[in-house]
Amino acid sequence: MHLAQTLAPYEGSLGDAMRYACHGGKRLRAFLVLEGARLHAVPTAPALDAAAAIEAIHAYSLVHDDLPSMDDDDLRRGLPTVHVKWDEATGILVGDALQSHAFALLAGMELSEARRLSLISGMAQAAGGDGMVLGQALDIAAETAEAPLTLDQIKRLQAKKTGALFEWSATAGAVMAGADPAPLASYAHALGLAFQIADDILDVEGDEAQTGKRVQKDVEAGKATFVSLMGLEAARSAAQSLVKEACDALRPYGADAENLRQAARFVISRQG
Amino acid sequence: MHLAQTLAPYEGSLGDAMRYACHGGKRLRAFLVLEGARLHAVPTAPALDAAAAIEAIHAYSLVHDDLPSMDDDDLRRGLPTVHVKWDEATGILVGDALQSHAFALLAGMELSEARRLSLISGMAQAAGGDGMVLGQALDIAAETAEAPLTLDQIKRLQAKKTGALFEWSATAGAVMAGADPAPLASYAHALGLAFQIADDILDVEGDEAQTGKRVQKDVEAGKATFVSLMGLEAARSAAQSLVKEACDALRPYGADAENLRQAARFVISRQG
Repeated sequence: MHLAQTLAPYEGSLGDAMRYACHGGKRLRAFLVLEGARLHAVPTAPALDAAAAIEAIHAYSLVHDDLPSMDDDDLRRGLPTVHVKWDEATGILVGDALQSHAFALLAGMELSEARRLSLISGMAQAAGGDGMVLGQALDIAAETAEAPLTLDQIKRLQAKKTGALFEWSATAGAVMAGADPAPLASYAHALGLAFQIADDILDVEGDEAQTGKRVQKDVEAGKATFVSLMGLEAARSAAQSLVKEACDALRPYGADAENLRQAARFVISRQG
Repeated sequence: MHLAQTLAPYEGSLGDAMRYACHGGKRLRAFLVLEGARLHAVPTAPALDAAAAIEAIHAYSLVHDDLPSMDDDDLRRGLPTVHVKWDEATGILVGDALQSHAFALLAGMELSEARRLSLISGMAQAAGGDGMVLGQALDIAAETAEAPLTLDQIKRLQAKKTGALFEWSATAGAVMAGADPAPLASYAHALGLAFQIADDILDVEGDEAQTGKRVQKDVEAGKATFVSLMGLEAARSAAQSLVKEACDALRPYGADAENLRQAARFVISRQG
């Protein structure tokens, strides 16, 4: 896998832990980048770099989210989390280094300077304090808030926490080609919401062996989720509508976007 | 201060904590950027953005270093550290968001695309898993190592942990102007080493009220430092030689570099 190759030069136990953190996973975000790039006939080399960069950001976010003072998870992708296998300090540093690595990859891509900068700006915004990190902060604040979140608040939280990087992933190919990213942005918006609803359903119904992570966490924490607010059946039906919406947004690409449509259907049928 | 202005849009307690983390400090790295930019007649706007970016990176590194699982410090710049004033999760997220913010600033500078990318690549390398983060990992590993570090190992650790970002700071102006960064790189190399030796001396001799942070930490931890390995007098004399070396490297800039020479002298005479 390309990301693993790009991580090969990092030395010591920090390097080992960086590679460990990037091992496995669904690689949904990398898939979105590669499919978006294929739709726009982007050359392989920059497409692979962009895919590796988003997976590095995603892996960093998981390592930090799993820390004891955050979600306190000891299982991820079926294996001990980084702070369990090494220690908390290593978990913090691995995440920090993976974020830097993502920007190093984007800055060094074989792509016009303007488009590299566009990807870097987009990534910094989507990952930062008005994107993924804000979503994570809102999520943690919700756990101790007096009133449970409303559906609108959860939608906003999700748009920040996972939506922004889904959009970056799906539109990166269009950005790399200088094409209109709007259809893929709509696709990503609907897909991200469907993904989060499916995640909430999996937390209720999932099996730890299949998901590779702890389940029933939100239920135990008494957290407001799409499922707790809408009920299981309505959540399932909303996810299905969103998948249809995501597929419809791909109309401009015709049959070429069939892989992306299948990915949308997979997102709500997955068991892990 | 420019960095504070660029942080204004971040919302909620995450935004508050990001601004808090960037308040105060010596701003030595920003000073290096601004002086290097002045020597090369770089326009004010990109110089200020680059200075803000390096201070954002530095602030992120301090917030993470201060966490309980890292250096476990509750005082920084004379105020409670972020995880004390808020909580550990906020400390982790603030650091993460400040790193993204630094790259957002560099990507959006008023500067040619090629030079922006050069600054971004350099920052990602200097801050990441083969730069600052590696230095921090080596530093933590040294605490539990069986044998204390040798002088060469400490020099290498320091070159990674603080040297790489000192060099980025001092050379950013030359990079922004497309000029030769070599003299400023030599200056930064000697300055960074002098700075670390001075830090080790301050840990032994400093006053908590003046340094604004906990002292005698390394002594209590039985950690190998420049002082423990060389003795106080030899360390002081090495720092003085390095300051002379740093000043000599500035010869190509003549009297224009007087501020940078004064900064080098300040580094080893400072009380905090």
